[in-house]
Amino acid sequence: MKIYLAGPDVFLPDARAIGWRKAKICGQYGLVGLYPLDNAIELAAPDASLAIFRGNEVMMDAADAIVANLTPFRGAGADPGTAYELGYMAGRGKLCLGYSNDPATYVDRARRFVTVTPHDGRLVDAEGLTVEDFGLPDNLMLIHALDLHGSPLVMPKQAPADLWHDLTAFEACVRAAARRVA
Amino acid sequence: MKIYLAGPDVFLPDARAIGWRKAKICGQYGLVGLYPLDNAIELAAPDASLAIFRGNEVMMDAADAIVANLTPFRGAGADPGTAYELGYMAGRGKLCLGYSNDPATYVDRARRFVTVTPHDGRLVDAEGLTVEDFGLPDNLMLIHALDLHGSPLVMPKQAPADLWHDLTAFEACVRAAARRVA
Repeated sequence: MKIYLAGPDVFLPDARAIGWRKAKICGQYGLVGLYPLDNAIELAAPDASLAIFRGNEVMMDAADAIVANLTPFRGAGADPGTAYELGYMAGRGKLCLGYSNDPATYVDRARRFVTVTPHDGRLVDAEGLTVEDFGLPDNLMLIHALDLHGSPLVMPKQAPADLWHDLTAFEACVRAAARRVA
Repeated sequence: MKIYLAGPDVFLPDARAIGWRKAKICGQYGLVGLYPLDNAIELAAPDASLAIFRGNEVMMDAADAIVANLTPFRGAGADPGTAYELGYMAGRGKLCLGYSNDPATYVDRARRFVTVTPHDGRLVDAEGLTVEDFGLPDNLMLIHALDLHGSPLVMPKQAPADLWHDLTAFEACVRAAARRVA
């Protein structure tokens, strides 16, 4: 089984090293990890972003499953690029797995960035936009995509000291994927 | 042609009214708009979030195209739920269209929320994570999904006074969809 390794990990200073660690863990379970940065892209080329997109799509099409890192990225929710990829894989009928190293509910995450107040039976932010309040850790589309197209979101009981390098929850996803193969 | 109307519009105080306005514009071009809130969901039910997910997925499967509102939501980038839906529709081979009422680049959007500094030939935020700098308005996966699976992102030259209620860019997407039918 080939697993597409999605997440804002590609934005880390040690993005390549994280990819190698993830691929190594996949290997330990007899699976193959495909990591976006494994595509050779000339970043200075004028069409670099398009080449990255095409490379990622070819990788996703080649993969049987996705493990998406849905740890909140630069805000209350998951990285929109990763959310797109999770959707793409769900749409292609692939096995969808994911984890978040932040076990807080979406409401509690949102409170870190915006003022959340009750209004007319809803929770709203300062702009008056509803803050989703189903007790879920992120937007319901992401969470239930995992429930219905793969395996439920894996979260630690407590956020690990290193939110971006702790791969315990990631490994639990890989283990779940390996069980599907067996 | 049936168009799935995706976006954080569902979180607006007047979410239903926006849906009606969008569906009406679709009708003016001979198209049918499908809006998530048209599904009858009992919000107080214990499995409400799952019912919403299922309803949205049935709608997406019934639609031929998506018009995604990618206006930045509660941060620098698009709503992750909408990004998921754009990915799902791309994965299903549907026509992908989208707009953003904020024409700023991702880097400029990010600067509103985090400190962005140059480091080792990249732009990084305070956590040291790369700030994507391809001159695009959002994550490259979203932007190029539109380029390659439908029609390029529609943006106004300047952000409209009412970011959440101005439907000029939305209507341009509907017009582009209608041209595909003709």
